[in-house]
Amino acid sequence: MSQAGEQGTLFVISAPSGAGKTSLVAEMLRQDSQLGVSVSHTTRPMRTGEQDGVNYHFVSRDEFEAMIAEGDFLEHADVFGNYYGTSHAWVRETLATGQDVILEIDWQGAEQVRRLVPECVSIFIVPPSAEVLRERLIGRGTDAPEVIERRLAEAEEECRHAAEFDYLVVNDDFGVALADLLAITRAQRLKMSVQQLRHGKLLAGLVSRD
Amino acid sequence: MSQAGEQGTLFVISAPSGAGKTSLVAEMLRQDSQLGVSVSHTTRPMRTGEQDGVNYHFVSRDEFEAMIAEGDFLEHADVFGNYYGTSHAWVRETLATGQDVILEIDWQGAEQVRRLVPECVSIFIVPPSAEVLRERLIGRGTDAPEVIERRLAEAEEECRHAAEFDYLVVNDDFGVALADLLAITRAQRLKMSVQQLRHGKLLAGLVSRD
Repeated sequence: MSQAGEQGTLFVISAPSGAGKTSLVAEMLRQDSQLGVSVSHTTRPMRTGEQDGVNYHFVSRDEFEAMIAEGDFLEHADVFGNYYGTSHAWVRETLATGQDVILEIDWQGAEQVRRLVPECVSIFIVPPSAEVLRERLIGRGTDAPEVIERRLAEAEEECRHAAEFDYLVVNDDFGVALADLLAITRAQRLKMSVQQLRHGKLLAGLVSRD
Repeated sequence: MSQAGEQGTLFVISAPSGAGKTSLVAEMLRQDSQLGVSVSHTTRPMRTGEQDGVNYHFVSRDEFEAMIAEGDFLEHADVFGNYYGTSHAWVRETLATGQDVILEIDWQGAEQVRRLVPECVSIFIVPPSAEVLRERLIGRGTDAPEVIERRLAEAEEECRHAAEFDYLVVNDDFGVALADLLAITRAQRLKMSVQQLRHGKLLAGLVSRD
């Protein structure tokens, strides 16, 4: 429950593919009711079983480009010809209710978000070793060599930006990595600046006898 | 186990008397083997059952004042005519092994420590309400009014400095407050600056294929 004056935190989580980010974030959302995940806007076609406003906000390229022009996105990217973006208004309104928001984006999106929301908390997830990462990206060896090569290069590029993040979580054991992530979100809520908004009355009462 | 290059964090924990700090810190130390607590130097007489080097390092006033003159203390205080202090050398050496150190001190000690170790992480613990605090400090009503008055004034003075701390923990439910404290110490170990020392080889391996 949000109390008057509370302000949520924006968590940005990035990782190379193969680090287990998606499963970890799904479990964080299941275990921590104060965490919400942003529903992105996209121009890619809706797939069977997807719902507008649930999986994505599905919009046309013209609509998306108009939103870019208006500065409506906290971050956006063009991925293989389709746009994906996070509405700044939605994030701002959700944080103002005291709810925390997780954005699962790449290092470039994280860079955009840090510029607009400098108080965001960013977390980078890595696999336990370079070997594990390579095995996961190579997969069953059924993909074309150039597809595998591109995946490896992208993962390297992502990891090259790890140092720009506030926290590093190593996903060796899923349960340990999950507990690490939940400790980060829990600790963030205990920061003095956050707690002063939540417990202003208590703090005032402790220093004035009436 | 400490690995090469690891560096522990110095946690400073303060609270008004009656907030439950001592029991919380004792339980943190029991549950988290990476946390150690500093053994203070003092000039107060050893009590029955106490051991030199375990409960305190018991020294004479002359020895203590010589240590002050040498700048050997991270923080020290004169409490009712007895000196208490934390050896800077001990803290520095312990942190260098990768172990974290907790200092249970008052706001004045915390201020001294922040000046010498600006990267320390400080936590303030408060009771759930001003009424609870007053009830605990008034106790069974067997103390002289002026003793109670002094305790209340000291608690207020301590709380007046809460905003100088990095984190605020409200001790309403002991288990929740303990989990809060353990989340703060866990999250601190996941900070990028700390993790880069611990996982330098992993991070280097992820960005260079050999």
